[in-house]
Amino acid sequence: MTAKTRAGNFFEDFSVGQVFHHAVPRTVTEGDLALYIALTGDRRPLHCAREFARSLGFEREIAHDLLVFHIVFGRAVPDVSLNSPANLGYADVRFLTPVYAGDTLRAETEVIGRRETSRGDVGIVWVHTRGYNQRDETVLQFYRWAMVNKRDPETNSGAADAPKLPSQVTGEDLSVPPELDLSRFDPVVTGGKALWEDYEPGERILHPQGMTIEDAEHQSATRLYQNTARVHFNEMLQKRSRLGTRIIYGGHIISLAHSLSFDGLENAIRVLGFNGGTHSNPTVAGDTLFAMTDVIERIDLGREDAGALRLRLVAVKNLDPNEEEIEIKVKDPKSGREGYHQNVVLDLDYTVLMPRRR
Amino acid sequence: MTAKTRAGNFFEDFSVGQVFHHAVPRTVTEGDLALYIALTGDRRPLHCAREFARSLGFEREIAHDLLVFHIVFGRAVPDVSLNSPANLGYADVRFLTPVYAGDTLRAETEVIGRRETSRGDVGIVWVHTRGYNQRDETVLQFYRWAMVNKRDPETNSGAADAPKLPSQVTGEDLSVPPELDLSRFDPVVTGGKALWEDYEPGERILHPQGMTIEDAEHQSATRLYQNTARVHFNEMLQKRSRLGTRIIYGGHIISLAHSLSFDGLENAIRVLGFNGGTHSNPTVAGDTLFAMTDVIERIDLGREDAGALRLRLVAVKNLDPNEEEIEIKVKDPKSGREGYHQNVVLDLDYTVLMPRRR
Amino acid sequence: MTAKTRAGNFFEDFSVGQVFHHAVPRTVTEGDLALYIALTGDRRPLHCAREFARSLGFEREIAHDLLVFHIVFGRAVPDVSLNSPANLGYADVRFLTPVYAGDTLRAETEVIGRRETSRGDVGIVWVHTRGYNQRDETVLQFYRWAMVNKRDPETNSGAADAPKLPSQVTGEDLSVPPELDLSRFDPVVTGGKALWEDYEPGERILHPQGMTIEDAEHQSATRLYQNTARVHFNEMLQKRSRLGTRIIYGGHIISLAHSLSFDGLENAIRVLGFNGGTHSNPTVAGDTLFAMTDVIERIDLGREDAGALRLRLVAVKNLDPNEEEIEIKVKDPKSGREGYHQNVVLDLDYTVLMPRRR
Repeated sequence: MTAKTRAGNFFEDFSVGQVFHHAVPRTVTEGDLALYIALTGDRRPLHCAREFARSLGFEREIAHDLLVFHIVFGRAVPDVSLNSPANLGYADVRFLTPVYAGDTLRAETEVIGRRETSRGDVGIVWVHTRGYNQRDETVLQFYRWAMVNKRDPETNSGAADAPKLPSQVTGEDLSVPPELDLSRFDPVVTGGKALWEDYEPGERILHPQGMTIEDAEHQSATRLYQNTARVHFNEMLQKRSRLGTRIIYGGHIISLAHSLSFDGLENAIRVLGFNGGTHSNPTVAGDTLFAMTDVIERIDLGREDAGALRLRLVAVKNLDPNEEEIEIKVKDPKSGREGYHQNVVLDLDYTVLMPRRR
Repeated sequence: MTAKTRAGNFFEDFSVGQVFHHAVPRTVTEGDLALYIALTGDRRPLHCAREFARSLGFEREIAHDLLVFHIVFGRAVPDVSLNSPANLGYADVRFLTPVYAGDTLRAETEVIGRRETSRGDVGIVWVHTRGYNQRDETVLQFYRWAMVNKRDPETNSGAADAPKLPSQVTGEDLSVPPELDLSRFDPVVTGGKALWEDYEPGERILHPQGMTIEDAEHQSATRLYQNTARVHFNEMLQKRSRLGTRIIYGGHIISLAHSLSFDGLENAIRVLGFNGGTHSNPTVAGDTLFAMTDVIERIDLGREDAGALRLRLVAVKNLDPNEEEIEIKVKDPKSGREGYHQNVVLDLDYTVLMPRRR
Repeated sequence: MTAKTRAGNFFEDFSVGQVFHHAVPRTVTEGDLALYIALTGDRRPLHCAREFARSLGFEREIAHDLLVFHIVFGRAVPDVSLNSPANLGYADVRFLTPVYAGDTLRAETEVIGRRETSRGDVGIVWVHTRGYNQRDETVLQFYRWAMVNKRDPETNSGAADAPKLPSQVTGEDLSVPPELDLSRFDPVVTGGKALWEDYEPGERILHPQGMTIEDAEHQSATRLYQNTARVHFNEMLQKRSRLGTRIIYGGHIISLAHSLSFDGLENAIRVLGFNGGTHSNPTVAGDTLFAMTDVIERIDLGREDAGALRLRLVAVKNLDPNEEEIEIKVKDPKSGREGYHQNVVLDLDYTVLMPRRR
């Protein structure tokens, strides 16, 4: 009689070069696309307007890039992060082949680094995850690193294999789907007047909306992605945690902030990549989320119809940046160290595709 | 560098004859139909039973008329009612070409009237909105009027262009889809025994069910329709309002009341039109909704298979009309003026299609 | 003028041999499948992975057996259990022809027994319900018995027609879909290493996850199934009940417990039948659900690719069996009678299909 349930992998169970073929492939359906809208408020027309998607060269509306991200991420949780108290960061996240309703997503993860920390009870594991469709085309790839609990806090393995990761998805790696053609792009469809040339590095956009989050909403979203990390679902367990309640899946916060950012970035056609990202503070049910975007860089893609914009999307809880200015990072008065403002919950450095003036 | 976010239109920004081509066309999918059922409890078989829909001449189940209404309405919010404290009424709402999963809805709105009010800070704007499918067929048209904030409360424009609107969708404008044929109608499918002839003007139907509403439910519904009016989502903002909490989108209340009205109106095949409607009081999470229907008129459509019924659908919160009689309108003891009972939240005058006895 | 709403059937209205053809057939769509995942967290790949389903001989992913159960069950509520304070049990529940998105479900119920009880106000009614698809193939059949209110508590009808029901779906009645072929079964897809031979009668599996339930979640699920039993929706009514709040539909608890049981039973391909089941205590919003499985029997189906496992799925609220041992049944210290532990909410005896070692 073998053990039937799994305790998940601990720091000691990971080794560089190890590859996980994650279970439970997931066919994306029209139901998922509708639920994504209902749970996040997304309005980007590439994901909900069939004829618009066709006018840009796609077969029909494509699954939201972040829906794909969450589904691929969810596949990896049972192997990688069941025993992870926190995801520390993302790097070189690239959105590749578009996903349509009817496509089936599966994922693989390779361990690329591990390091002991100053704390005895956790180590850090770096992984590279790839999501594939049913034709084995890569739809997404990303690096992330997470704290992982140790089985034996007493023994230090001496592991110090932190990998060097790219700080940015560089221009040549920004993958524009070859079918995409913006020559027939009609801004009446998006409702946005500003195009690539109109965004200036240094500009800050305060998105006007706020959204209060309920437990039923984030739980439904996280279940939709079949992400089983228990901190999102088990109130009894969480009541004993430092936070005192269920923590919202960080990816849901990315989706909500991205949805809020539609007002002011209506013509951001597609996410090309995340350069890096931090879940700087937790969010819980009852929190009201706001978003602001700093324009970092205008990237020329060497094509006439579109350019890329590097943006910093910052999500703030329970404080409306339209009403009250907020410093993203602040100095701790005691330690003097700089850290995130306690209301900043997401700091995402990412790159989108945007039509150019013609 | 141009402003990227929009503050929405104020009373001064509207002029009679102005036309808005609303952004973000929306492809309706099977996911939306399923979510409509999950969020409202709708059971009308034309919208969930494929073979029944075919037996009536349709290609397959059609999107619920109110789902179409909400999606079209949602398109218009960013241009028309971002700065609107209240929608005041509807007139001549006509449900036209049926909508199937796969159809894409877009909308246009023409301003048809504006008037200053006795209050300096708001005016009233009348609009006519049309919803179209991807073949440019009109699926829905309606008039509505709403309070809209003024940018400059000090200046009175003297606007007094209140239009004359029809008080009823008259018989000749009641559009029955040409494909509809009730000769094969089978009441076993609906479970309702009463047909057109069985409803008597003056009759009141007390629908037996009640439904308590949660924030996660109305927010998910309102996001599904991509309606961005912030009063439904931002608890922080709403805490400072007179209501003190998020207000539920009035359209969600119409949908819930219509769903509750299935018990007693099982054979109401389709909504043909709204003659008028008032959201008489706000609803918030935690309220329990009940519904009752007064039969106003039996309209002969000059066909043997079906007639129309003009109905008054009244939604009541936190008071069960099955247990306690309710006066829809009451006299204020102080002012002597007649107004809605404080628990009445919807007074909808609408017309449905119903099979006749054969 | 006839009464338009129905009070539902009372104990006196049922007679043995009576057949109900339930209203509102329901076409299952991709939207329902996605919502089932979002609301229950189901991860069984037969229901979400198209190519995996095809590799087993199916056309594509099939609707979850429990989704089919809930939809068929929901059809019968208005005729059978509107006036039912409690469902008492299930027997001989058989899952037959697989259901795909696009299939339409309808249901019929025959009354097979009725009995007066020691209480004057309720009787017990036994029914046999069958669910059919649009080709009149049986997709599900089950017996259940429920308490039903009497219209006239003063009169005892002397009814004593309790039927004899099978205590188990026996081997020969365990229907394996003829198209199913496990020769290409790949356990990487499920992520589970244990196969039929690995489960030993007497073994207990403590599933590791817990899930806290919100009102918006169980209401949305129950509405999706168009189950109208008012105890799930009307907080005003329920506040006056002994429970004091809305009671969660027992079927939702079965779905959640079954979803939680994926960890440890990953290769349970399909539910073949329920032998019996009891909703031993109510659950309400805020409860956290856990699940454990006792292996009862390994059933040889006389085929090389698969066998059946008879399991006892026990759901527990607000007590994690991984942390604290729980006796499913306990003796009442006063009466000395054995009854369910007050935290045990479901005791389901059911049978699944599982691949064998090759």
